[in-house]
Amino acid sequence: MKKLINNPESVVEEMLEGMVMAHPTYIRKLENANVIVRKVSPISGKVALVSGGGSGHEPAHAGYVGHGMLNAAVLGPVFTSPAPDPIYEAIKAVNGGAGVLLVVKNYTGDVMNFEMASEMAQMEDIKVASVVVNDDVAVENSLFTAGRRGVAGTVFVHKIAGAKAETGASLEEVKAVAQKVIDNVRSMGIALTPCIVPALGKPNFTLAEDEIEIGIGIHGEPGTHRQTIKPVDELVDNMVGKILTDMTLTGGDEVAVMVNGLASTPLMELYIVNRKVYKMLEEKGIKVYKTFVGEFMTSLEMTGCSVTLLKLDDELKVLLDAQADTPALKVL
Amino acid sequence: MKKLINNPESVVEEMLEGMVMAHPTYIRKLENANVIVRKVSPISGKVALVSGGGSGHEPAHAGYVGHGMLNAAVLGPVFTSPAPDPIYEAIKAVNGGAGVLLVVKNYTGDVMNFEMASEMAQMEDIKVASVVVNDDVAVENSLFTAGRRGVAGTVFVHKIAGAKAETGASLEEVKAVAQKVIDNVRSMGIALTPCIVPALGKPNFTLAEDEIEIGIGIHGEPGTHRQTIKPVDELVDNMVGKILTDMTLTGGDEVAVMVNGLASTPLMELYIVNRKVYKMLEEKGIKVYKTFVGEFMTSLEMTGCSVTLLKLDDELKVLLDAQADTPALKVL
Repeated sequence: MKKLINNPESVVEEMLEGMVMAHPTYIRKLENANVIVRKVSPISGKVALVSGGGSGHEPAHAGYVGHGMLNAAVLGPVFTSPAPDPIYEAIKAVNGGAGVLLVVKNYTGDVMNFEMASEMAQMEDIKVASVVVNDDVAVENSLFTAGRRGVAGTVFVHKIAGAKAETGASLEEVKAVAQKVIDNVRSMGIALTPCIVPALGKPNFTLAEDEIEIGIGIHGEPGTHRQTIKPVDELVDNMVGKILTDMTLTGGDEVAVMVNGLASTPLMELYIVNRKVYKMLEEKGIKVYKTFVGEFMTSLEMTGCSVTLLKLDDELKVLLDAQADTPALKVL
Repeated sequence: MKKLINNPESVVEEMLEGMVMAHPTYIRKLENANVIVRKVSPISGKVALVSGGGSGHEPAHAGYVGHGMLNAAVLGPVFTSPAPDPIYEAIKAVNGGAGVLLVVKNYTGDVMNFEMASEMAQMEDIKVASVVVNDDVAVENSLFTAGRRGVAGTVFVHKIAGAKAETGASLEEVKAVAQKVIDNVRSMGIALTPCIVPALGKPNFTLAEDEIEIGIGIHGEPGTHRQTIKPVDELVDNMVGKILTDMTLTGGDEVAVMVNGLASTPLMELYIVNRKVYKMLEEKGIKVYKTFVGEFMTSLEMTGCSVTLLKLDDELKVLLDAQADTPALKVL
C-alpha cells in the first residue's frame, strides 16, 4: 500500500485538519465530531442542508459545504457510515430555525443512522426532513444497499436544493425540489482498477490486466459484469445506453451532464468520455444545458468514471445556474 | 495499458472535442490548430495571455482559458512541445492590439518554439513579450530542460498576470507582474507511480512496490533520488524544507500554497499533505494567505504530488483574489 498518509487509523482526522487549514474562510470543524460546517453557522431563517456518509469519496461531501450548497457534511470512517451522534450534532449546529434537510445516499447504514439522528433532532423540536438519493441504474440492491445505490447524482441534489434553500424557501419546498432532482437523475459507472481502504491495506477487489467492471459501486461493490476493456466510445455507449433505457428523455429535452472521475482517471480521459456522451445525446436531439467534468464523487484511488444525466426543467435550470461558492464547486 | 481512450494517436483531438462540448460558453477551438481560445476573442485593448505546452498535464493549460486567466492555450502532443505554427495562430487569434504575453514553462522545446512564434508574430507587427517559468527547485537541468523546470507554479503566473491584464494594464506591466510571480514561486514534487504516454504504451519509468521518486518532473524526468516511502509528514518535511532553503521567507511573510495532485493521488491524501505544509509554515511564523488543493498541473495518471509556495506582497494578493472564471479555476 503506497499512500501519502501517516497512519491508516487517522486519515479522516488528518484530512479534516488539512481541509480546514486550506479553507478557513469557508468551513470549520465541530469540536467533538467529524462534522464540517460553514464558517458562519447557523444561518437564521434559512433551511439548512446536511449530507455525509463514509469518507473516501472526496470532495464529497465536505468539499460542498458553502454558500449555495451544503451547510454541513458528516464524515464517517473510510467507506463506513457516520454514527447517529455526529449527524445529530451537525443538525443542531446548522439549524437556523427554518428546519434541516438531510440528503442521504441510499446505503443501509447511512439511511438508518441519518433516520436515527433525525428522530433525535425532532425530539428537540428541530424540524427535519430527509431525501434518499438512489441514482445508480447499474443494479437493484447491492452489497450495502436495498434498492439502488446513491452515487454522483447526489452532487446535483446538493447544488439544486442548496440554491433553493438560499432563496429562503420552506423546508417543504426545499425537500420537494431535492426530490424532483432525485426523480430525474440517473448514473452509471465503470472501474478499471480497485482501491485500497487504508485500514485494510489490500485492494477491495481484483481485476485482470485488461479487465474492467461494468456498473461498479463507489465502494467497489460489484456491478453487472466484467469484460475486457474496449475503446471508450463502446464503454460509454453501454453506460449511457443503460441510463437512457431507465429515464424518459425525448428530442428537445434538456439535461445536465456530469462526467465524474472515480479518482485516478486523468481529466484527458474524462473529456474523451464526455465527447461520446455529448454525441449520443446530440444524435437523439437531447440538448446538453450544462456539463460538469472532473472529480465530484470519488472512490479513494480507484480508476474509472461515472456518467450522470439530470433531466432539467426551467426551475432546475435556474437553481443549477445560481451562484455557489464552496471549496470544491464554484458557480459564478 | 488500461485507459479510457479510443486511439492513442487521437487522444489530444478527442479531448479537445470533449472539452469544447463541455464548456461551449467559455472556450472554442481554432479550426486548424490544437489551440483553445476564449469564446469571445480577441478582446480589444487588453493584453492577451497565451500559454501551452505538451498535453497530459490537464487541466493545464486549456482549463485555464477564460476571464481573469489565459486568452489561449496551445496544445502539443502528449508530453511534446507544440510547434511554432499553432503558437503563432494562437497569438494572432487573441491579439486585441495591446500585445500578447507568452507564459512558457522552461523546457527546451517550449522555449524554442514559443520564441520562434514570437518572432513570426512580431514580423506581423504584433507586440509580443515572454516570460519563462522555472519554479521546480528539485534539480538544475533535466531531461528536457536547461536550468530549472517549470511546473505547477505556472498556474499562479496565469492567475496573477491574467488578473493584471483584465485591469487594462500595459504589456510591460503585465510582463512585470508575471516575472514578479516567477521570482517568488518555488515548487517540488514526488512520484509514487509512473505514467504511460498513450502512443508509447508502456510506463515512462519504473519504481519498486515501496519506492518513490523525490524531485520528479511532470514528464517523469528523474529527481534527486529514490527512497522507500515514509509517512507523508516526513516526505513533506523534505519537500518543503528544500523549497524553504531556496527562497527567503521570514516570520510575518505571507504565502499562497498550492498542493497539487499529479493525477491519481486522492484528494484525501492531498489534504493530509496540506496539513503538514501548513504546520511547517506556521512553526516558522509564515502566514498562509490562500491555499489551493487539487489537480492543477498533472502528469497523465501519475501518482504523486507537488507543493508550491508563492511569496506574496499587497499587489500579488489583490491579483490572486481577483475574480476568475475558467473551466478549471474559478474565484468569486
